[in-house]
Amino acid sequence: MIDAGLYRRLFAELAAIGHEPGGWNRMAWGPGEDAARDWFRTTAAGLGLEITQDPAGNLWAIEPGAEEGPFDAVGSHVDSVADGGAFDGALGVVTGLVAVEAARRAGGARRPLAVGAMVDEEGPRFGAAIFGSRALCGEMDVDEVLARTDPEGNVLRDLAALRGVTPESTRAASEFLPRVASWIEVHVEQGRHLADVPAPLAVATSLAARERWRCTVRGVSDHAGTAAMAGRRDALVPAARAVIAAHELALAEPGAVATVGRISALPGSTNQVPGEARLSLDVRAPGQAALERVRDGVHAAARAEGVETEWMLETADPGCVFDDDLRGALHAAARAEGSEAIDMAAYAGHDAGVLARHLPAAMLFVRNPTGISHNPAESASEEDCLAACAVLARTLVR
Amino acid sequence: MIDAGLYRRLFAELAAIGHEPGGWNRMAWGPGEDAARDWFRTTAAGLGLEITQDPAGNLWAIEPGAEEGPFDAVGSHVDSVADGGAFDGALGVVTGLVAVEAARRAGGARRPLAVGAMVDEEGPRFGAAIFGSRALCGEMDVDEVLARTDPEGNVLRDLAALRGVTPESTRAASEFLPRVASWIEVHVEQGRHLADVPAPLAVATSLAARERWRCTVRGVSDHAGTAAMAGRRDALVPAARAVIAAHELALAEPGAVATVGRISALPGSTNQVPGEARLSLDVRAPGQAALERVRDGVHAAARAEGVETEWMLETADPGCVFDDDLRGALHAAARAEGSEAIDMAAYAGHDAGVLARHLPAAMLFVRNPTGISHNPAESASEEDCLAACAVLARTLVR
Repeated sequence: MIDAGLYRRLFAELAAIGHEPGGWNRMAWGPGEDAARDWFRTTAAGLGLEITQDPAGNLWAIEPGAEEGPFDAVGSHVDSVADGGAFDGALGVVTGLVAVEAARRAGGARRPLAVGAMVDEEGPRFGAAIFGSRALCGEMDVDEVLARTDPEGNVLRDLAALRGVTPESTRAASEFLPRVASWIEVHVEQGRHLADVPAPLAVATSLAARERWRCTVRGVSDHAGTAAMAGRRDALVPAARAVIAAHELALAEPGAVATVGRISALPGSTNQVPGEARLSLDVRAPGQAALERVRDGVHAAARAEGVETEWMLETADPGCVFDDDLRGALHAAARAEGSEAIDMAAYAGHDAGVLARHLPAAMLFVRNPTGISHNPAESASEEDCLAACAVLARTLVR
Repeated sequence: MIDAGLYRRLFAELAAIGHEPGGWNRMAWGPGEDAARDWFRTTAAGLGLEITQDPAGNLWAIEPGAEEGPFDAVGSHVDSVADGGAFDGALGVVTGLVAVEAARRAGGARRPLAVGAMVDEEGPRFGAAIFGSRALCGEMDVDEVLARTDPEGNVLRDLAALRGVTPESTRAASEFLPRVASWIEVHVEQGRHLADVPAPLAVATSLAARERWRCTVRGVSDHAGTAAMAGRRDALVPAARAVIAAHELALAEPGAVATVGRISALPGSTNQVPGEARLSLDVRAPGQAALERVRDGVHAAARAEGVETEWMLETADPGCVFDDDLRGALHAAARAEGSEAIDMAAYAGHDAGVLARHLPAAMLFVRNPTGISHNPAESASEEDCLAACAVLARTLVR
């Protein structure tokens, strides 16, 4: 049913865009993503699909006549992090195009089909990850996000306007949402779970609830030799207690993960008691209650007399549970195709996680032998990717 | 006995050298220290002293005819840290010149007198603090230290040679040492102890044993969302345990202090498990045994399965106990002058600490109302500084 040659050609074409010595660079709102979006428009038109840009800037390649929806959509995104991998996002768009083509050749699906390429999923440039889906779903503070600047001083509002995305259109983007009847996203796994099982495919059960915090502890800087221990207000000590608490509380909470990935002490001299410490906290858990148990424990651990500890919420996502019917259909298709697909809880953010709060959505993960993502070492075998195409196409024509 | 006008003039002249908006800048082996050394030569000659540069680069202003020693010396250093204070080092040299002048006017001392200005006491540029005293005492790996480069790529060997300090002379510097019969160093306090007591002066009983370590923990970087807690090898967690252990073990060890002043996690992203962590450890304690109890406990705390923890000793100083006779003489002189001088254990490194391992040496600390050092906020009242001059002069003529 699947045209392996088509898959190979499309994947190679998209992988040629933004491919630099350090990895793939298709940063959103710039020439990298623009080139990939142009490729998407041209390629989808070549497959006989009609191209629509929704008011948030997402591209939809839709079966002719079904532009007003409702359509069953598949897809992902074509932007990348800096020096990212070839598969993240790209795999979902390519498998989507290949599966829709296969489903149409097989005689069509129960509803018109579409392939979506969501804008700025990665978000490193403006700190606004999953921009396209959040805007489409009315889950974004549009004016705040569009006012952000990148490190070069570019304002997102200006870059978006160049691409037909205005504050007015973005604020009204959710008017487009009823056209999307369902969403299935194929994605390369960002860990080693499938490689370890081993299994080629996984149907996601849920995306974890996630929060990112920044913490600043303010103590009093002092001389490392002459300041007696009892009188110190060392900002790094409560920060270190937060690191330990994040590790131990998440270990004790089934399915939870907590990470302090950044830490610094100021002024940062060997012979000075830190007067200030800064750290990040990333907490993810299967459900908001579990997340709060870990997060509240970490916050409590960083409290100490004589220092001031301030926690700032950077991003929060309540996570989602994916649609039972779509999950069942993906498992049934995998059985019919002779592919093993396990259930798996997922911990990263994806367009499907936002969309799942508004319409039936599901995700199909493809084994990544390296377990590495956001890095050129990210990988998936052609055999596994073709299996994903086949399962996706069979799900569309169920 | 003390010429307050002379003290005022000399302190003002030296404080005018390297005084910039951000603080005092008389970095060793460069124009800042050079200008202060020129001032020292000119000023001491104006007071009728003979100038000798020893083979390690230290300057000695000696009573005429006594250049071959043995002489009783007082002094400190004229270099500074970047944006340092006006008193650190400078106060010991100025009070030394003023006290020697007073002692000579009072009819002389039991031995000829000299004032020393030791080279590169601070050491930030080449990481070779207390260079002059260590070289003079044969306590330095001369070839290793002279081969070091500063951040601009200057080699210390070249800068020292421009100032008449060669590898050959430095290796032979300890031949000069027998000329120095004793050493007393006046220094601004680097903490708030005297301000809290309150008392204007303190006679140091000892300098703490000190060690500085750098630690690198190597774990495995991973995705903060998809890497399960149980399989992680997070390098920051053992590093945080070291921070806590340093704090708690030093609190429990009387007189000990331990500080982690620098810490970082790599790659340093909010959503990545740290694959590497780096930290500094500064431990000081009254005696090597107490130091080792704290240090060994910190090292043990940073051990964890699945990570590799490497500790590199950066500097070590066994500390010293100051000379009983000189301490008694300083206390007697303080009583005679009507100045209160308490006993105090000291925790920083000083030229006197190195010299005390080779000849009778002592230190007299002057109250610092701010308790701050290595910073332009460092201070001492003129009244307290003149009291130090008087105590020092009376000690020399005892």
